[in-house]
Amino acid sequence: MAKEITSRSEDYSQWYNDIVKKAGMADHSAVRGCMVIKPNGFAIWEKMKAQLDKMFKDTGHVNAYFPLFIPKSFLSKEAQHVEGFAKECAVVTHHRLMNDPNGNGVIVDPTAKLEEELIVRPTSETIIWNTYKDWIQSYRDLPLLINQWANVVRWELRTRPFIRTAEFLWQEGHTAHATKEEAVKETLLILDLYAKFAEEYMAMPVIKGVKTENERFAGAEDTYTIEALMQDGKALQAGTSHFLGQNFAKAFDVTFLNEHQKEELVWATSWGVSTRLIGGLIMTHSDDDGLIIPPRLATTPVVIVPIPKPTDAITEVADQIIAALKAKGINAKYDQDKKKRPGFKFAEYEMRGVPVRLGIGQRDLDKGVVEVARRDTKEKTSQPLEGIADYIENLLEEIQTNLFNRALKFRDDRITKADNMDEFKEIINTKGGFVSAHWDGTTETEVKIKELTKATIRCIPIDAEAEEGTCILTGKPSGKRVLFAKAY
Amino acid sequence: MAKEITSRSEDYSQWYNDIVKKAGMADHSAVRGCMVIKPNGFAIWEKMKAQLDKMFKDTGHVNAYFPLFIPKSFLSKEAQHVEGFAKECAVVTHHRLMNDPNGNGVIVDPTAKLEEELIVRPTSETIIWNTYKDWIQSYRDLPLLINQWANVVRWELRTRPFIRTAEFLWQEGHTAHATKEEAVKETLLILDLYAKFAEEYMAMPVIKGVKTENERFAGAEDTYTIEALMQDGKALQAGTSHFLGQNFAKAFDVTFLNEHQKEELVWATSWGVSTRLIGGLIMTHSDDDGLIIPPRLATTPVVIVPIPKPTDAITEVADQIIAALKAKGINAKYDQDKKKRPGFKFAEYEMRGVPVRLGIGQRDLDKGVVEVARRDTKEKTSQPLEGIADYIENLLEEIQTNLFNRALKFRDDRITKADNMDEFKEIINTKGGFVSAHWDGTTETEVKIKELTKATIRCIPIDAEAEEGTCILTGKPSGKRVLFAKAY
Repeated sequence: MAKEITSRSEDYSQWYNDIVKKAGMADHSAVRGCMVIKPNGFAIWEKMKAQLDKMFKDTGHVNAYFPLFIPKSFLSKEAQHVEGFAKECAVVTHHRLMNDPNGNGVIVDPTAKLEEELIVRPTSETIIWNTYKDWIQSYRDLPLLINQWANVVRWELRTRPFIRTAEFLWQEGHTAHATKEEAVKETLLILDLYAKFAEEYMAMPVIKGVKTENERFAGAEDTYTIEALMQDGKALQAGTSHFLGQNFAKAFDVTFLNEHQKEELVWATSWGVSTRLIGGLIMTHSDDDGLIIPPRLATTPVVIVPIPKPTDAITEVADQIIAALKAKGINAKYDQDKKKRPGFKFAEYEMRGVPVRLGIGQRDLDKGVVEVARRDTKEKTSQPLEGIADYIENLLEEIQTNLFNRALKFRDDRITKADNMDEFKEIINTKGGFVSAHWDGTTETEVKIKELTKATIRCIPIDAEAEEGTCILTGKPSGKRVLFAKAY
Repeated sequence: MAKEITSRSEDYSQWYNDIVKKAGMADHSAVRGCMVIKPNGFAIWEKMKAQLDKMFKDTGHVNAYFPLFIPKSFLSKEAQHVEGFAKECAVVTHHRLMNDPNGNGVIVDPTAKLEEELIVRPTSETIIWNTYKDWIQSYRDLPLLINQWANVVRWELRTRPFIRTAEFLWQEGHTAHATKEEAVKETLLILDLYAKFAEEYMAMPVIKGVKTENERFAGAEDTYTIEALMQDGKALQAGTSHFLGQNFAKAFDVTFLNEHQKEELVWATSWGVSTRLIGGLIMTHSDDDGLIIPPRLATTPVVIVPIPKPTDAITEVADQIIAALKAKGINAKYDQDKKKRPGFKFAEYEMRGVPVRLGIGQRDLDKGVVEVARRDTKEKTSQPLEGIADYIENLLEEIQTNLFNRALKFRDDRITKADNMDEFKEIINTKGGFVSAHWDGTTETEVKIKELTKATIRCIPIDAEAEEGTCILTGKPSGKRVLFAKAY
């Protein structure tokens, strides 16, 4: 297997595309902007889903499923929302094809026009709140803590696998509450949950913060975000949790009788993460040799390669190791394929990001050892067979920790303070990463800075300290620094 | 909670709709023919998915994800397929909305017309085989054993929750093989897997068979099916596995170099089950008091109700039982809600089909017993607290078995032989169920019988014995009996 992977320093964007392709993550499709998620990529999504789903359920949420289609009129019901989502979307106008009378395949049957066009969901607030109207009458029906795993479509012009595609997979939580306090608490609970998932499972450090008005979700009162930093110094919005206030309750007339039999509007949140996380995972850890998967998200964190070929003795040892790992809940694979040479296999598993690779040859066995290669550092050591399962178990934990710490150092080294526009531009144009700077709080200034530098305010960090200062653009007073960056 | 459920004898169809609604399984949506799958219904789908997914993976399959949209021209590439699927489907013609210049919400932007219309997938053979073309070059790339969990859309005119909806959830397996023998073997492997799942998990007996040409999947050489019998005597096609021959390989030009470097067309299978299974589950087991869920598909197979209210003593015992059950991998819930009376709770859990309900009152505790009610027979007994977890574990197995045996007896009692059209009509119009009869093997006769009786050939059972006979309609010779029924 030829590596043929562009290096990051040569062309970061091409490096990313090479990894996506060569590691079997995704493929282009015949439909503009839509990707095929290949088995290796989907396996990571399945691990992510399983963990997130568990975290949602452990905090009292249940899953449901709402329709793919949204009546066009629904999108106009919430004034902000329509501006944000009723633009680039897939519109279903007909419900039948017919044979072309001229014999050229099939054509759209003009008599099968829908009375009202249907939009393929770009997000489901509208259809869900239209449904909640029927489900909520009394405070006894609240809270409603529902999540759905679904596909959504946004007709993006410039796409990139996982990071921005016309169709993507995601989860969207939609909760309904009796009080503002409870809804805000839910919004923050999910923000924390997302951050925990990103850091503990993806080994991807994130900054928790709140979006400015300009970057807020269309229809939200407040949008909270987790922001990660990619290896090219650009930020990635990795997940958002929205406090929607009573906006959707108003738009869809969703009220409840409180304990005192008084009618009130319901409070809402929504929150989501998507297959974009896979793009974030790739761009946080991978190197010029291929993908690197954190052990906790690897379906098969360990692979065993016989050197040069499987023999009875090697196979017996491999089977023992696999059984010992299985007893610890660690999945391992023994690659017995005789058509491929060890060197080819090594390169392939490196490309595919398998965290730990064992090589077993007869000479090793005679000495009672096996070769252990870790993907993160590419370090190879000889380890005694005795206790090898314990060693691997610890090593996987160590790799998980190392990946996080490495990414954290990279990220922390790229949070730079700027106190005027010259410094700001200099950092954005050379070092990249997050720039911590004072801002006067207006959308006007934010937009102007974006025009000048292409950097946007990624978030106002939740833990931002109070600090008197002056806006880098206007010199107006500011009470704390916010984080700017160029972003995906 | 008022029961207000129509009895089966009064109006079977209404009974079904009542269960779907009152047991919190599904709800109508604002979009014609599309349902909302509510948390209780979705929880069953999640259990089904988890088990099926495990069975697929245990037999070497992996998951992937292909685009929601299919270019219109793809549907015309396989001659049979286009007839079957390019008819009633959702057609995307535009990719943008704009504000109505007259101020009435949003309208479709006429300038954003797609060059080629996109079809929301009714099934994915075409887009997948168009992709496989790039993935398959050599015999080394085969077999390809891929499954996807997805939503699909077929613009149905007459819909019924779960059984037939415009959008539904399913899995579709699409495999590629080097030889015909291997593809046929795969088709039958999946048929067996589906039957095993239906019988061992859903407790729903099925008949395995092959479809007649007339009922075959559009583009298949052979369609295998599992057929179940509902309580109203109508059959339900519960899953299908198709041997596609080389039809899609021809249509999408998918060839491979065999071991002798000769180019050959690839052999294909596809197979699927859908949320329709939930409809089958309901109509196999449930009764006039509500849903009945087989223990193996119940998220929470045991519920504990304090009588009349939770006290410290009752809660302590409940917690002990829950812990003991948890140790056995059985999920139980303790319903401490003080706002609802026990009778209300009993009716609610009965409606929702929870397999086992425990009632714990102080008087019971004084005697060292609890009340155990099983949902399948509605039998109530007093059981010693000592060893209660073991008792429940066995009881759940017994309920699972009982549900299957009950349904099997019901089904077997309704497989009736008919040797002429008069007998045939009599059975179809009164007793219902499957009619086992001789048929001359022609589509013409099959269609004629359908016109006369509304019954179709559900399948030619795989284990049908050779038996000389004459077609009930034409008197022509027949070598074995086939199964007819009215069907959903």
